[in-house]
Amino acid sequence: MRPIRIGIIGYGKIAEDQHVPSIRNNGRFELAATVSRQGKGAPGIRSFASHHEMLDQMEDLEAVAICTPPSVRYDIARDCIEAGLHILLEKPPGVTLAEVEHLACLAAGREISLFTTWHAQHNPAVTAAAERLAGQSIASMEIVWHEDVRKWHPGQQWIWEPGGFGVFDPGINALSIAARIFPGELFVREAELIFPENKQAPIAARLRFASSSSGGELSADFNWNHQGKEEWNFHIRLSDGTELKLIEGGSRLFVGDELQASGGHGEYPSIYAEFVDLIDERRSHVDIRPLRLVADAYLSGRRSTAPPFEDG
Amino acid sequence: MRPIRIGIIGYGKIAEDQHVPSIRNNGRFELAATVSRQGKGAPGIRSFASHHEMLDQMEDLEAVAICTPPSVRYDIARDCIEAGLHILLEKPPGVTLAEVEHLACLAAGREISLFTTWHAQHNPAVTAAAERLAGQSIASMEIVWHEDVRKWHPGQQWIWEPGGFGVFDPGINALSIAARIFPGELFVREAELIFPENKQAPIAARLRFASSSSGGELSADFNWNHQGKEEWNFHIRLSDGTELKLIEGGSRLFVGDELQASGGHGEYPSIYAEFVDLIDERRSHVDIRPLRLVADAYLSGRRSTAPPFEDG
Repeated sequence: MRPIRIGIIGYGKIAEDQHVPSIRNNGRFELAATVSRQGKGAPGIRSFASHHEMLDQMEDLEAVAICTPPSVRYDIARDCIEAGLHILLEKPPGVTLAEVEHLACLAAGREISLFTTWHAQHNPAVTAAAERLAGQSIASMEIVWHEDVRKWHPGQQWIWEPGGFGVFDPGINALSIAARIFPGELFVREAELIFPENKQAPIAARLRFASSSSGGELSADFNWNHQGKEEWNFHIRLSDGTELKLIEGGSRLFVGDELQASGGHGEYPSIYAEFVDLIDERRSHVDIRPLRLVADAYLSGRRSTAPPFEDG
Repeated sequence: MRPIRIGIIGYGKIAEDQHVPSIRNNGRFELAATVSRQGKGAPGIRSFASHHEMLDQMEDLEAVAICTPPSVRYDIARDCIEAGLHILLEKPPGVTLAEVEHLACLAAGREISLFTTWHAQHNPAVTAAAERLAGQSIASMEIVWHEDVRKWHPGQQWIWEPGGFGVFDPGINALSIAARIFPGELFVREAELIFPENKQAPIAARLRFASSSSGGELSADFNWNHQGKEEWNFHIRLSDGTELKLIEGGSRLFVGDELQASGGHGEYPSIYAEFVDLIDERRSHVDIRPLRLVADAYLSGRRSTAPPFEDG
């Protein structure tokens, strides 16, 4: 079987660290091209300065992974859908909901596969957690997502601009796990968004959820100004008293004190394995819920102001 | 044919001024009950302090119109769907998108009709504008929605609270018209949201849209601190040079200098006429787009601060 020739648009750190090795280690794909406005690229692979150039010159391309900052993804994805390519979108799939929903319609119209990926959902213990929680009654869920933006996004400015998501850039990973594992629909009931005086995106957020399937305390605490070791943890109590801890960003699941075995390929290899299935079956997988929860936090949230934040 | 027995939940100004007369003038409905926490109600009609009491005691109720502030609509609507009632929601249908989408699922599951109304879409000239614009190429669209909050919401506090919408309370009427008449999907591309220093909701907003069907300037300017006569206007230029003006909140359409004839029953009579059709045909009409545009403005928008706003 001929491999699926794929291009990467937006050749930054995540493309280099995650997408390239996952594509190279998946025999069904062949990395055929990369696009970078800065002229970066993978050794030995054709590199272009714009997706237009790539689409013009690479006639046998079949798929693209779009890893640019979110604000430009819609226009690029639309061009690629029109060119008949299958699309993998890094998280978040766009800045606005209407754009993502429209891409889903366009993809359906062209019968190509659109995959809005949420890499945290592919952590090995997340599937185990979802299986353990299926059909259970949840007494409480506490999400803590604390990290140091200086460590994880040194010098990046777009994350603080309008549409840059701020602390929701990591927080949406937690929300994507919650959407995957929580047995029922989650609604934002209260939110507090804390904006540094000099930034357009929040540095911290606290959310309280409601659910039609649980009357308990459901909360999330996102902090991007955290010193020391990151905390990316879910603590869930079932109505029968069982305690679950999904820690280290979905890497390990404890039920009670017992570490649960969890398999899987790792985040990005799992993403590309699913992308193959979607392409083979001409299906799309569009999960808007994590982005919608962020939107709902903005719609319903209280804003407060924190002191100015200075990088470094 | 036996009339549809309907209750009104949330008996405030809009219920009294619009819903009661529209129900009374539609022979297919019978106003059977009202709910008001403040004990208000229509003369001669059974009145309840909560929707729970009404649902317990009015066993032959078939439909409800929910006119409470948006923050409590989801819980009430869910209870009413579970009781098997058809639901009409005042605008906006909820504070968060996830809640509204979930109500749509619940309604589909119970096979009742859910109608998320946007009263401005029922203005007589809006249908005429939609028909005139269908299939046209749009060169530009300028929306101006300026009114004085002191005149239209005297003393109302919830509009300034988190989830209270602020200037998007009237602005969403404009967005609902835009969603109805614009021939193509609209996306928020840039937004500026202006918050009074002492309020949790914006007093002004400026939006710039993109559309897959138009490369022209598409904008909206919402101002709630406007002195003098309100301006609720669309100014649309087609690529062939034709100018359309839809003015007075969708009441009158000019094509060039010529006033177009426009029929229709008026906003709320038209809403109740459609509700009858939906119930008769066991269909729902859920239009999430105006609320999604507001969410997208928050997701992508720049915030700035205005001086404190004091009522009166």
